[in-house]
Amino acid sequence: MTTGSGPRPYNFSAGPAAMPEAVLQRAAAEMLDWQGSGMSVMEMSHRGKEFGAICAQAEADFRALLAVPEHFHILFMQGGGLGENAIVPMNLSRGGKVDFVITGSWSAKSQKEALRYCNSHIAASNADSQHTRMPAPSTWQLSDDASYVHLCSNETIHGVEFQELPDLAALGSRAPLVIDFSSHVASRPVDWTRVGLAFGGAQKNLGPAGLTLVIVRDDLVGHALEICPSAFNYRIVADNKSMYNTPPTWAIYIAGLTFQWLRQQAEGALTGVAAIEQRNVDKARLLYDFIDASPFYENRVAPDCRSRMNVPFFLKDESRNEAFLAGAREAGLLQLKGHKSVGGMRASIYNAMPLEGVQALVGYMREFERSHA
Amino acid sequence: MTTGSGPRPYNFSAGPAAMPEAVLQRAAAEMLDWQGSGMSVMEMSHRGKEFGAICAQAEADFRALLAVPEHFHILFMQGGGLGENAIVPMNLSRGGKVDFVITGSWSAKSQKEALRYCNSHIAASNADSQHTRMPAPSTWQLSDDASYVHLCSNETIHGVEFQELPDLAALGSRAPLVIDFSSHVASRPVDWTRVGLAFGGAQKNLGPAGLTLVIVRDDLVGHALEICPSAFNYRIVADNKSMYNTPPTWAIYIAGLTFQWLRQQAEGALTGVAAIEQRNVDKARLLYDFIDASPFYENRVAPDCRSRMNVPFFLKDESRNEAFLAGAREAGLLQLKGHKSVGGMRASIYNAMPLEGVQALVGYMREFERSHA
Repeated sequence: MTTGSGPRPYNFSAGPAAMPEAVLQRAAAEMLDWQGSGMSVMEMSHRGKEFGAICAQAEADFRALLAVPEHFHILFMQGGGLGENAIVPMNLSRGGKVDFVITGSWSAKSQKEALRYCNSHIAASNADSQHTRMPAPSTWQLSDDASYVHLCSNETIHGVEFQELPDLAALGSRAPLVIDFSSHVASRPVDWTRVGLAFGGAQKNLGPAGLTLVIVRDDLVGHALEICPSAFNYRIVADNKSMYNTPPTWAIYIAGLTFQWLRQQAEGALTGVAAIEQRNVDKARLLYDFIDASPFYENRVAPDCRSRMNVPFFLKDESRNEAFLAGAREAGLLQLKGHKSVGGMRASIYNAMPLEGVQALVGYMREFERSHA
Repeated sequence: MTTGSGPRPYNFSAGPAAMPEAVLQRAAAEMLDWQGSGMSVMEMSHRGKEFGAICAQAEADFRALLAVPEHFHILFMQGGGLGENAIVPMNLSRGGKVDFVITGSWSAKSQKEALRYCNSHIAASNADSQHTRMPAPSTWQLSDDASYVHLCSNETIHGVEFQELPDLAALGSRAPLVIDFSSHVASRPVDWTRVGLAFGGAQKNLGPAGLTLVIVRDDLVGHALEICPSAFNYRIVADNKSMYNTPPTWAIYIAGLTFQWLRQQAEGALTGVAAIEQRNVDKARLLYDFIDASPFYENRVAPDCRSRMNVPFFLKDESRNEAFLAGAREAGLLQLKGHKSVGGMRASIYNAMPLEGVQALVGYMREFERSHA
């Protein structure tokens, strides 16, 4: 493994995941004294002017980065995606019915957790394809009376991604759309006209674990069930500008640095999320094209819904898995083992993964195939 | 303000708060490559062997530091003390009755939030003294049928601390004691024979905001209400060794470094928490003795329940408050403004505050008095 003074290894972890090196370097440099304040960011009162500035800048940068309209709140919360699986229905279900679109492990978990708070209707599922196909929106059985429709816009484990969010109104539903975008947030634009609420844990594409972003439309706030904890009530969190309870200040700071890094990215004439999206398209194409052309590896997801972020793949001869992983570690390619529920391998190639990392992975895969086929 | 190459200023924030400089230095040094792993701790999968080792070591160090018996779980959670105000009754109340001892803002907030989940009985309150006296345990009106008794063992805002935890059995209650020890955890030993559950946000004495420690006795786990979110169900969190959802990995790492720092502390023949307790006693005595002897300042809390951690004080002539705070900042003494609900000043002198910081504060206060009296 490459360590010490050489280049850093490439880290394909599904999350917590690789971060931009520039962000880590700045965090290290500012650790004992943030911009002349005499304090580490970790030592600042969340109610002081220094952290207030950090938090406001992070929110403004995220809003600019993803063009979040003004009638959406940006909330910094805790509990991760699994926490939101309860927090969303406590805030939005009104105890009624919720439509779920099941496309993999994460949407299935969301549906199961929501049963504590509301009735659930499974409007569509790709379980019969082992979560490798996307059920066409035209086939979804949407309810007339759903409080909202939930989907996971990128399934981290199964590697299935919505390439376009559904237009629920065109499908005959009046319900707002809730998306779990944990594992592809800020990797592509979001069409906010189609979304009522989006939530995501930060630990894949935005920063450290322990921070959850919730982007919620004004009119959906204020309808929480009585049993919703105050710390997780969107009305209370929004009214207190994410400072009802002490927020995860360090994680917000690092996410803020990551937002700044994202805004600075450029590819040709493209900047910000448009630039990073182009890079993500190029990275994913390189890896999928190589896998599809190889008789040695395979990806089982339908091409029209393959994730740009999480690429599960298999060696056709799985007896070589351990040798593949050991050789990868030797080559400075870390955390490629697939999720236990799927097996095989998984390369997570989030925003912070440079094209060179995917090139190195493909180079290693090609060489491993040559020497083991 | 002292910045740059000179000594760091002294930070009296109530939380997030000053941290040991050695911890910050190590965190900066390991930022891009934790012990040859090629990864920042923020980039590690929580299920990988590297972070697994960090988390297990943190738990073991905390257990050793506070002599936590084996029949207590140590859980790393999210949501802070305000989150636990809901999470504790969801897990422990069984929908029944809970006794509350009100000694300040934090216990009052806990009581109010619990009403969502259970019946509440106020067994004692010091509200009539503006939270400056401790109601004697012999006067508490404990219920026969309480699921648990809740108290806040150190009130951060009012500066009131239990110098000894009550022996509920001796008071005729069979209920377990729940303590919110957020703002004095690890500043003194805990008598676990008197405690059923202790919780604390990390951001005062243990590390960064975004991490909550819950120490809970075996037999109290497994009785959650059906509406308790899975991510906050002690049974699920314990069974998954705090990794049901992605834990706040960075915060656990920093807390772990802080636990190691605490274990290394020594004062004469004392080590660990005994050493830090002695230092805390010395720091608090220095400050309270100075205030009590001065005609210029005052502390209004009864001497037998004054907090060693949070020292609220007042200038008798409050028209000098702004000048006092401005001069303090000039002298490198930060974040001394009192909580808005109490006013005046507050010096939080947690474990990471050296005696020299309190000496500098007393020196400044003496000089300010001399020049303004």
